[in-house]
Amino acid sequence: MVIESATTLKEKLPNKDLKFGATFTDHMLEIDWDSKNGWHAPKISPYHNFEMNPACSALHYSLQCFEGLKAYYDPKLDKIRMFRPMENMKRMNVSCERLHFPSFDHEQVMQCIKQLIRMERDWVPKGSGYSLYIRPAVISTHPFIGVAPAESVKFFTILSPVGPYYPSGFSPITLYADDKYVRAWPGGVGFAKIGGNYAPTIRPALEAAELGFSQILWLFGPDHYVTEVGTMNQFFFWKRKDGRRELITAPLDGTILAGVTRKSILEMSREWGEFEVTERPFTIHEVIEAVDDGRLIEAFGAGTAAVVSPVNGFHYRGKDYKIPLNPEKPSEQAGPLTQRIWDTMEAIHYGATPHEWSELIE
Amino acid sequence: MVIESATTLKEKLPNKDLKFGATFTDHMLEIDWDSKNGWHAPKISPYHNFEMNPACSALHYSLQCFEGLKAYYDPKLDKIRMFRPMENMKRMNVSCERLHFPSFDHEQVMQCIKQLIRMERDWVPKGSGYSLYIRPAVISTHPFIGVAPAESVKFFTILSPVGPYYPSGFSPITLYADDKYVRAWPGGVGFAKIGGNYAPTIRPALEAAELGFSQILWLFGPDHYVTEVGTMNQFFFWKRKDGRRELITAPLDGTILAGVTRKSILEMSREWGEFEVTERPFTIHEVIEAVDDGRLIEAFGAGTAAVVSPVNGFHYRGKDYKIPLNPEKPSEQAGPLTQRIWDTMEAIHYGATPHEWSELIE
Repeated sequence: MVIESATTLKEKLPNKDLKFGATFTDHMLEIDWDSKNGWHAPKISPYHNFEMNPACSALHYSLQCFEGLKAYYDPKLDKIRMFRPMENMKRMNVSCERLHFPSFDHEQVMQCIKQLIRMERDWVPKGSGYSLYIRPAVISTHPFIGVAPAESVKFFTILSPVGPYYPSGFSPITLYADDKYVRAWPGGVGFAKIGGNYAPTIRPALEAAELGFSQILWLFGPDHYVTEVGTMNQFFFWKRKDGRRELITAPLDGTILAGVTRKSILEMSREWGEFEVTERPFTIHEVIEAVDDGRLIEAFGAGTAAVVSPVNGFHYRGKDYKIPLNPEKPSEQAGPLTQRIWDTMEAIHYGATPHEWSELIE
Repeated sequence: MVIESATTLKEKLPNKDLKFGATFTDHMLEIDWDSKNGWHAPKISPYHNFEMNPACSALHYSLQCFEGLKAYYDPKLDKIRMFRPMENMKRMNVSCERLHFPSFDHEQVMQCIKQLIRMERDWVPKGSGYSLYIRPAVISTHPFIGVAPAESVKFFTILSPVGPYYPSGFSPITLYADDKYVRAWPGGVGFAKIGGNYAPTIRPALEAAELGFSQILWLFGPDHYVTEVGTMNQFFFWKRKDGRRELITAPLDGTILAGVTRKSILEMSREWGEFEVTERPFTIHEVIEAVDDGRLIEAFGAGTAAVVSPVNGFHYRGKDYKIPLNPEKPSEQAGPLTQRIWDTMEAIHYGATPHEWSELIE
């Protein structure tokens, strides 16, 4: 590993001025690969612009994939923690495989990322809801405008200190259930964290925003199966017709991103054993029926950026449907299950609750 | 317009050494845009690497679109010609709109591209099948890793001298009709020339190549509608059950790229008035029935790179189907209609046949 330290350091913003994804730290990690020599030596150097040939296929054919995870400051131990980072590394290899990018050794690359975080440990903001967002990515650096496998790629990682997604506590979102745009489909690439899945979502999100909705609830197929919300996985918590309470989310059928937060919520809920936890295809009509019957208890999106994002309603085909947050405490901005998941996850993230999901960076 | 000329020029390759998309000319065009100042002054300068912030959303969320067109050397007039360039400009604005990129003035941008080609006129290779491939593109230069509209973009154009797609005359391709991967979907972005449509096709194409097939014939839906081939539009020429001859291609239903070559072939065939010319959804089963009945006359892909690409057969669900090229002259590598379209298009491209589709660069 080649390490070149920055000679002048950037000024760190106070926590209150942190904006998601707009501030970057002093250093970055780069690991180049080419088809002749394989992976080159990893390099950590001052944050700098890339020199990119305008013909690079990352810029024409979207030969690019990325990951998103976070590092947290543990105030008890005065150490930095990461949350299930190998899950992200594994998923990145799935994305790389789909793009015919070279695979990489999870462990070795994670060691490089940890080294970068060690160098930037003063950049990890302190306090509940604050973290250092870690953005690994792989892009083609092959200057060739034929649609062809990349003969050279760059793995890189940049870091961005971030504040809570909702600075003033939870802020419930209202969804626009869309049957005009389709995010992913069977035989497509919805399961992979590749660039091409994201650009097409920006315009639909703006159109929903113009109608007054925070996010798109992505539907699929003529029966309008519920798939994801914005760039998050979507969960509903309802009482089934047989009276059993159930937490439900769409299954990993190839159209759904295998969220690490999604997986963690499913695992912890199953361990609690207090209600059914189900991954199966379900339609917006089932959700509407549950709303109409008064069986829908809570709804939330789940992802690395927001952890959980309470949903207070959705719009579908001209009609608004309300979802309870906390009927017993109307002033609360999240239902009891959403809040409990948040609290449990946060306690693990920052080390308040020891858990194997949280790894110390020694 | 700011023009900065290169002080040293690259060596031009002889025609025989030209490889599609790997050699670039001495200069490039750039036009920057930001949400505060709008479009900046266009700049032509020596071909150079971009300085890109690693957080640019072109590299993470595939905020990128492109076009492909060609300039041809007219030996009679000793001038350079372009083929229907405004069609590409219009389509690029469609792609930009889908990505929520700023729109641009077709005419003004075309003037800039023409100016670049004038400067590079010695790079336009001479001879049938040779041309200067023109690659305009728009990428986000906004260094922000939230999934959000680009607040700055760069329009640029690079040029690559190219030889005939098949150096030794036509070389018919055999297709693999795929029901595992799906290129596009209603409500998706298959109609737009955006990067995200291309990266996912590389791995399927390699898998087909490993089985011995040149390109993927993309199918759609449970009925296996025929959509596109590789990165081209797909045409079949058959005798219908009512005895009428028909040239058929998939309609522009949102899943199909609106190819300029596609449009030109449809327009010229309709003008010939010798057979039916049809845009409608049709399935692989209709094609197989036509093969089995001996009604399939010819098949070809159509696009800017290859113009037309004769198809001599396809594989579907474990079975190979043969498509005639020219039954009367088995040594020919393309059927009479495919050859006629090629000859007609080439005559227009190089100015042998005067036609409004071909624009002189004065």
